[in-house]
Formats: sequence, structure tokens, C-alpha cells
Amino acid sequence: MTSTSAQNLVRTQGVTAPAGFRATGIAAGIKASGTPDLALVFNEGPDHAAAAVFTRNKVKAAPVLWTQQAITTRRLRAVILNSGGANACTGPGGFQDTHATAEAVAAALSDWGSETGAIEVGVCSTGLIGDRLPMAKVLAGVTVVVQEMAGGLSGGTEAATAIMTTDTVPKQVALHHAQDWTVGGMAKGAGMLAPSLATMLCVITTDAAVDADALDRALRAATARTFDRLDVDGSCSTNDTVLLLASGASEVTPDPDEFDAAILAVCDDLCAQLQADAEGMTKRIAITVTGAASEEDAVTAARVIARDSLVKTALFGSDPNWGRVLAAVGMAPVELEPDRISVSFNGSPVCIDGVGAPGARDVDLSGADVEVVVALGVGSGSATIRTTDLSHAYVEENSAYSS
Amino acid sequence: MTSTSAQNLVRTQGVTAPAGFRATGIAAGIKASGTPDLALVFNEGPDHAAAAVFTRNKVKAAPVLWTQQAITTRRLRAVILNSGGANACTGPGGFQDTHATAEAVAAALSDWGSETGAIEVGVCSTGLIGDRLPMAKVLAGVTVVVQEMAGGLSGGTEAATAIMTTDTVPKQVALHHAQDWTVGGMAKGAGMLAPSLATMLCVITTDAAVDADALDRALRAATARTFDRLDVDGSCSTNDTVLLLASGASEVTPDPDEFDAAILAVCDDLCAQLQADAEGMTKRIAITVTGAASEEDAVTAARVIARDSLVKTALFGSDPNWGRVLAAVGMAPVELEPDRISVSFNGSPVCIDGVGAPGARDVDLSGADVEVVVALGVGSGSATIRTTDLSHAYVEENSAYSS
Repeated sequence: MTSTSAQNLVRTQGVTAPAGFRATGIAAGIKASGTPDLALVFNEGPDHAAAAVFTRNKVKAAPVLWTQQAITTRRLRAVILNSGGANACTGPGGFQDTHATAEAVAAALSDWGSETGAIEVGVCSTGLIGDRLPMAKVLAGVTVVVQEMAGGLSGGTEAATAIMTTDTVPKQVALHHAQDWTVGGMAKGAGMLAPSLATMLCVITTDAAVDADALDRALRAATARTFDRLDVDGSCSTNDTVLLLASGASEVTPDPDEFDAAILAVCDDLCAQLQADAEGMTKRIAITVTGAASEEDAVTAARVIARDSLVKTALFGSDPNWGRVLAAVGMAPVELEPDRISVSFNGSPVCIDGVGAPGARDVDLSGADVEVVVALGVGSGSATIRTTDLSHAYVEENSAYSS
Repeated sequence: MTSTSAQNLVRTQGVTAPAGFRATGIAAGIKASGTPDLALVFNEGPDHAAAAVFTRNKVKAAPVLWTQQAITTRRLRAVILNSGGANACTGPGGFQDTHATAEAVAAALSDWGSETGAIEVGVCSTGLIGDRLPMAKVLAGVTVVVQEMAGGLSGGTEAATAIMTTDTVPKQVALHHAQDWTVGGMAKGAGMLAPSLATMLCVITTDAAVDADALDRALRAATARTFDRLDVDGSCSTNDTVLLLASGASEVTPDPDEFDAAILAVCDDLCAQLQADAEGMTKRIAITVTGAASEEDAVTAARVIARDSLVKTALFGSDPNWGRVLAAVGMAPVELEPDRISVSFNGSPVCIDGVGAPGARDVDLSGADVEVVVALGVGSGSATIRTTDLSHAYVEENSAYSS
């Protein structure tokens, strides 16, 4: 999945690695725990081109509806993100809260000297669905977060920390290209991770001089192969948002293929970080389907296997119960011939042409990484879905989230 | 779901309640545990009409492939069922094992005096996928089980016991119609329970004088509304089989509507028993979707919710986290308007027109039964999917099954 640019990735920096970006995160009191919960990413320009992809869930949170409108201008000057509440299923009042937040950010940035309209402010929220945000705290926090951001240049880690919910570590990465342009990114998401992005907020920044068309193309191509192929629990959030902002501050317009590869590499690395910190994860699992009639079939088949509770519990138990993989893939709505399916676990064949291989029950799956390869033998399409096991910790964490 | 015939259901009898049927179950040594693992159901006639529905999984076990051929004759004289091994993903050798089993049953029945061909013998298997059956034990067991069956008239409970895998109790039911005809049934299935029947074997018998066409129609209508709407873990087995055998021994041809209702009631009751004994179950959950554009949409939406790990873990934790229901249904490929969706838990409104209802977080879900009703408000289609919660016990049981 990673590109040739991958060798340049560093995880000690994030959205403020590219020139022209400031960010920070604060504790605004939205979370009862008192931990950081409000982040701001600000693009100082000179360009303000932007692109975005959003959840495909029909039930969309207020900030998604807002930011979908804002991005129609194909430019953003700032993104405000809160954890501690998803502002989803909150009705017209919830949408007014999002609008008011964008207005407050615009006013504070304008007061600071950067003339900004509310329509230039993207809004992202994450947390429990169904409750209104504590707006007095949010609005007071907006004033503070703009002041904090104005005072320093490199608060990427603080921003990445303030968007965490059940995440245990902040996720960020930066890619420095030899030709003096940079891509940085941060993401959050640990549960409700699935096809249409993953319960997940992600902001990617670059100082490359790239127009909105090229940003959009690069982002859609990258998310289709990365976030769309991360599937922890088959659940898709109401709030998923990935934003890509370009400042043009490097004054370099990259080769399009190299730029696309850089965006892909950053998305891919953030996905690996999300997978590694997924709720209840004890194993990182890659399900690769090869020999499918098409890449789309391969994605579909791999996703069906990745979502199968019996496959996921078997892998949690380090049990090479390959029959469950066969049973799962047999339900995938793709072209397949049961007698041609072969399966390997961590490189060891466990099923050949639909029948168990010698030693299949003895394959060692005790390590933290499991690679399942399912060869369908009907074509040349292939794809990998990243998932995790289904563990006691997953059940524990998700049976006691809202209460 | 239950019909007006439901009042006549008794669970102390099963497949031998109707006249003309014998059955029994023995321990043939297929299971290492030494518990019963081989069952026989025999139709003494005078009729031998039969109907069947099978798993929709493309990966089909050898006994499914065999019985699909046998049922093309629209008649069966006997069904042999084993637990302790699914005989799935076992290649041509596994199919030969099934064939040899049917031949052995036919020979033993013929020796006993009931001239039987192998094509008149249905075969069902359940257990671990991927291993060949211990055929010496199976074939020796066939001789014993036919002898046992020949010696007694009412071994329905023994048969229901011998098909259990992770089931903790045998499941059987009988419906005695006032007009002197009877339907009896047995089923097994505790995990890998999902749409295309559920990991599940079921044999239904009747002494009504009903031809194969009527049996087929009644069985398909009933399974579509019962077994097809039981979804414990979204996983569909390679072995699912439901058989309906008619002996005609009552010499009564029922009113078709009453017969259909009786088959539906027996299937429905067996589904309730399967749900109540599902792996790791701590709560019996009914997800009802109303106001859908069609019944098909209602089934689809209810199934998406029933399969959502975050909904299932929340209910395990007795947490009325209704936002997860909204997030789940928002991904269903059905017509819906987020602002019209209302949800209730056990009759208490928790979401009205897409927004949280007062007191929603305080609804008591501590009991063993949870009824979730999701009103889409776009049409008049409705359907109920039965499921269970996702518990520690489910993870425990399924992470240590094959090894």
C-alpha cells in the first residue's frame, strides 16, 4: 500500500509540518474528563485551496452538513474540530450550533487580523451521537484556541491530541519531499471504523501549490485505497470527514504523480496508526483477496471476511480455523468457484482448492500481526482490507461507552 | 410472528409427534466428547413427499450438495444427521463419504424390511468445517442407529439431542391440529446463525396428506419469515438445511392456509428456541422496522441494525445508546429520511424525528428481552429480525472452538 515516498514519513510532526499552517488544541470543558477537546488548524496561505470527502452514511452529523456546504467554494481557511460530542441527530438546533461555531471562529480570526468568513471555516465533531454540544463552553473555547494558535507556530501535536475520543495515542505524520514541499496529517478514530472512511476525522495539510481540482483528485484516489479499506467493526459513523488543505507556501507545484503518491502515503500511514489503536485490538489483521474477477470484487470479498465475527473471534483466539474464512467468503456477492479457493495464514497454506491443507490446524497465529490471503482463482483483481480481531476488550469498551 | 395455531404448540415432543415417523439418536463416537452425535428420522409412510431449503452460501458442504440432488425427486424416506463434523470443504472425498453414508442407511433400512434407495436418504452434517468425518465410526453408527430406531417408536428427543453442537438444550416442538393432523420439528444451531437460514439443521415432519408442491410452498413461505429473519452473528453456514417430510399417515388433507400457518408456527417456535440458546446470548433482541418503503426494505434495514457490533455491544451493556441505531440504519441501502426516523426501546421513545427524546438515556434495558422499534416514516413496510447481544461469552466461545 505504501508508495516510494514512504521512506520520508515521520510521525513526530503532523498538520503544522508544511509551511503556512498553524494549529493547536485546548481543553474547553466539552469533555467531562477535562482532557483536550477543541482543535484548530489554520491555513495562512497564500493559497486556500481545499478538498474533502465525507461519510456515506445517510444520517449525517450537523458539522458534516455544514462542511459539505463550505467545501463547495473549494477553499477553506480554517478547520475547528471538537471531541466530546458528535453533534449528530441533534436537529436544526444542532446545525445552528455548528453554524455559530464557524461564525465565532471567523470572528476571532478576523479580530486577530486574518479576515475570515464563516463559510471559510470547516467544522468537525466526534463523540457521542444524540446530545447537543455545551455551546457556552464551545464558544468560549473558540476564543481561547484562536489566541493560543496566534501565539505559536507549531501546535500540530496539541491539535492531534484534542481530537482523540477512545484513541489512546494521537495520530500524525509528515512527509517531506526532496523538492521542498511537505504533506502533514492528523487523524482520530478507534471505533465505529468502517467502509465509508471510518469513524474518523482527518485533516491533511500541504504547502505545495496545488489547485482544488488536483487536491480533490488526489484525496479521492487516496481515501478509496486507504480509509475506505479500513474496517474494524463494520460500523460507519455519522461524522467521518477527511479534509485536505493547501497553503501554496512552498511555491512549488509538484509533479502530479508524486503529489498523489505523497497523499496516498500519508493516508496509508494514518490508517495504519488507526488500525493499531483500534478499540479492543489485540491483532492487526490484513485480509488480502487475490485472483478476483475485478478489484471491486476483491474489495467486496475481503470486506465480507474482515467483518465476519466468527473469523475475528477465531483470530483473537489465535485459532487457524480457516473454515470460517471459506464460510464467510462464500457469502460474498462476487464471482467465485468454491473448488478454486485457496487460503494462507501468515504465508502458510491452510486451504488449497477448497480443501484443507496438511498442517492447517497447526499454523501459529500467536503474533500481533496476521496476514490472511484468499486466492479466488477466477481473475486478476486484488485488494487488501485492514481490520482487527474481535476481543473481550472490544466488547468491554463498547458496552460501556455512553453511560 | 406466531400464528393462531400457536396455542397448540408443545415442546415436549418433536419429529415423532406426527404419525408415521420414527427417530432416534446415538453416540457413534464422531465427537471426541462421547456425547450423542448421530440421528435418524424415518418416514414409514404411506406418503414420502418432501421439500427442502438450503444455505445460500456458495461454499456448500458435501451433505448439502447430496441432499440437493436427493430432493429433486421430491420425496425422502429418511434423514441421517451427524454432529461432530460439517463435512464441508472436504473435496470429492467428502462427497463420497456423504454418498457412502446414504448408501449405508438405505442398506440398513432395506435389511430391516423397508426397501430404501440411497437417493431417498437426506444427509445433514454440522460441526467444524474442513475435516473429513471418521467414516468407520459413522458407518458403524448407521447400523446401530437403524437398529435403535427399529426397536422404538418415539425417539424424537434423542434425535434432537444428537444433532447438538454448541447448543445447550435440544430444540423441538409439536403442533397438534384439532382436525387430527400434526406437525413436529427439531432444530439445532447456536452460532454462525444468519440470513440464509442460520447455521442450522432443522427437520420438520407431518402426518398430513400433503403433496410435495404444497410442502415446498409452505416451507419456503415459513422459512422466509422465520429462519431467514434470525441473525445472531451475520455469519452464514455452509451446511444450513431445513427439511419437511410428510407421511400422510393421518389421512387428512388440511386446509392449505391452516397447514401453512402450522408450518410457520413450528418454524417460528424453533427460531425462538434457537435465539434463546444462541452462543453467548445474554439478551434476546427483536429489531422491528416499520414505515419502510417495502417489506424488503424493512428486512434489509432491520438486518443491518441487527448485525451492527456497536448496537449489539451497547445492548449487552444495557446502554440505551440509540445514536448507534441511527448510525447503523443510516448505512442501510434503503429509502430513508433521517429527519423522519423515530426509535423506541422497549416501548419508550428514545429518538423522535431524528432527534433524541427526553429521558432517552435513562431507559431501563437491564432485562433479558429488548425490543427495538425503528419507524422510518416513508411507507408501510415492516419486518422483525431476531438477534442477540454481543457479549464476552460470545467472544469466549468463538475464540476457542476448533482448537
